[in-house]
Amino acid sequence: MSNPTLQELLDGVRSGNRRATARAISLVENADPLGYAFLREVFPETGRSYAVGFTGPPGVGKSTLLSALVTLLRERELRLGVISVDPSSPFTQGALLGDRIRLVDHFLDPGVFIRSMGTRGHLGGLAQATLEAALVLDAAGSDILLLETVGTGQSEVEVRGLADTVVLVLMPGSGDAVQALKAGIMEIPDVIVVNKADQAPAAAILTDIRTTLALGELERMPALITTEALTGEGIDELWSEIEDHRAWLGTEGKLEPRRREHLAREVFAIAGAQARTHLEQAVVDDPELRRVLDAVQDRSLDPLSAVREILETVFRIDSDRC
Amino acid sequence: MSNPTLQELLDGVRSGNRRATARAISLVENADPLGYAFLREVFPETGRSYAVGFTGPPGVGKSTLLSALVTLLRERELRLGVISVDPSSPFTQGALLGDRIRLVDHFLDPGVFIRSMGTRGHLGGLAQATLEAALVLDAAGSDILLLETVGTGQSEVEVRGLADTVVLVLMPGSGDAVQALKAGIMEIPDVIVVNKADQAPAAAILTDIRTTLALGELERMPALITTEALTGEGIDELWSEIEDHRAWLGTEGKLEPRRREHLAREVFAIAGAQARTHLEQAVVDDPELRRVLDAVQDRSLDPLSAVREILETVFRIDSDRC
Repeated sequence: MSNPTLQELLDGVRSGNRRATARAISLVENADPLGYAFLREVFPETGRSYAVGFTGPPGVGKSTLLSALVTLLRERELRLGVISVDPSSPFTQGALLGDRIRLVDHFLDPGVFIRSMGTRGHLGGLAQATLEAALVLDAAGSDILLLETVGTGQSEVEVRGLADTVVLVLMPGSGDAVQALKAGIMEIPDVIVVNKADQAPAAAILTDIRTTLALGELERMPALITTEALTGEGIDELWSEIEDHRAWLGTEGKLEPRRREHLAREVFAIAGAQARTHLEQAVVDDPELRRVLDAVQDRSLDPLSAVREILETVFRIDSDRC
Repeated sequence: MSNPTLQELLDGVRSGNRRATARAISLVENADPLGYAFLREVFPETGRSYAVGFTGPPGVGKSTLLSALVTLLRERELRLGVISVDPSSPFTQGALLGDRIRLVDHFLDPGVFIRSMGTRGHLGGLAQATLEAALVLDAAGSDILLLETVGTGQSEVEVRGLADTVVLVLMPGSGDAVQALKAGIMEIPDVIVVNKADQAPAAAILTDIRTTLALGELERMPALITTEALTGEGIDELWSEIEDHRAWLGTEGKLEPRRREHLAREVFAIAGAQARTHLEQAVVDDPELRRVLDAVQDRSLDPLSAVREILETVFRIDSDRC
């Protein structure tokens, strides 16, 4: 399908055709009008996939865990979409390849669609790229979307912003992450997994996490389990904890409000990122604005006056209030 | 000085008067026109302070380390400005207070000015708040600015964006941070400190860091030292490593380019944050735009069309390219 019509694209994706799905994602990523026409058309049908986000520090084995989970869910004949979100440099991608490669086992399975997301070429940044891919995979009939963050910071936010259930993956030695939970800097997830639990004693970190969770006043206590992703140990339990959380969201009527809030945040994140891209491009394109920036760098114009001037010129925002 | 004139404010801050300095920061934080007039006036004089940024996971003892460093630098009769950047919730601030309190020892020292930064009330977010405080403390004659990030993510970016020298503070057990360095997700700092080096064996993490650093092709190998901030051990060496880096920047002619790049990034960060704030406020204020958001949440309008409509209405951006 080198030049598909909108109808061919819709038919192909709706029937779960892999080539059509890959094509739809590429069209959207390349800002092709056909891609956007496609998204407009299918958006009302989306929301049928259940999205599970995996966050956690690098090196804890998230990709291996995901791969083991894919195997389990495929045995149960569920259709899967997998999205890896990685905002980092080409250097990083190389460094992490050894980890990511586990997912390659599933590349030939027609019931699994795997996509890696970078930041390149998207006016709306990572938020836009991730949302678009998720919507296409949702429309393609994925029962479950697995979203994995490879980096930290921004990518973690994007994954959480789309996930119905958030799984935090740690390992014995993830002292920083436990401290971040304790300090309230890291949001409490729905499920906590201590992976590589056989490689090092996990008792210390488990106690530490339990103590930390007991401190907060939580609406629902997160499940805490151990896994050994390489051997598949604990993966059954992981999935059953995710399903428990899903059932809880349903019983409590919390799934819809969570998704509505996520959609609003996505819109603001994408619009904000597009505005910022527009702003930087305007300064590149406009010699007058480049002079404003130069003046700041020479310390002849203060940065806040420069911001005001740029915003007025580019957006006609009157930032007197700032 | 309840209603100072601009001249009184300038005279007060330039002579290092604490009340005038506190007043100037408050005026700027409250978006008072006098505050901005003050910044416009003093900006050409700034850049005389040397800024050292401290990043690292929570719980490694950054505040204790900072406090010990303040003691050392005060013995050398340097004037200091200290800024703690914490973007987190009130809940977090409570949780971290035990740590932050170490700095209280220095609250009465007239040669040290300490300020905590949150996100509240700034159109331009944390970037703006931090830059403003740094400029005021620079104008007030600080020889050294010590910038500490309390949270992670955004606050780390702001601290790095102002720092001439970046110090990463870890402890034995900071496995996640070393993995992030290894994966290239965390930028390589100028100095790495392993604090609490006597509480747990530090050999493992030191080896791990050395191996990681050896992998990269670095322009300059970061110094790697151990400290025990509570007893003051290693603080002398920490300062001498910071001075070594400063001397290297000078010899290589890298200080000015670094600062110019930082200033440009600050301008974009502040302008971007202001644009985003403006956007969200516009949606709150405009019933028509709120309906657009509602339509997305009901899945009757796709998010990218909503983004386009919002950007056109608020900024008159034609985002056909997106």
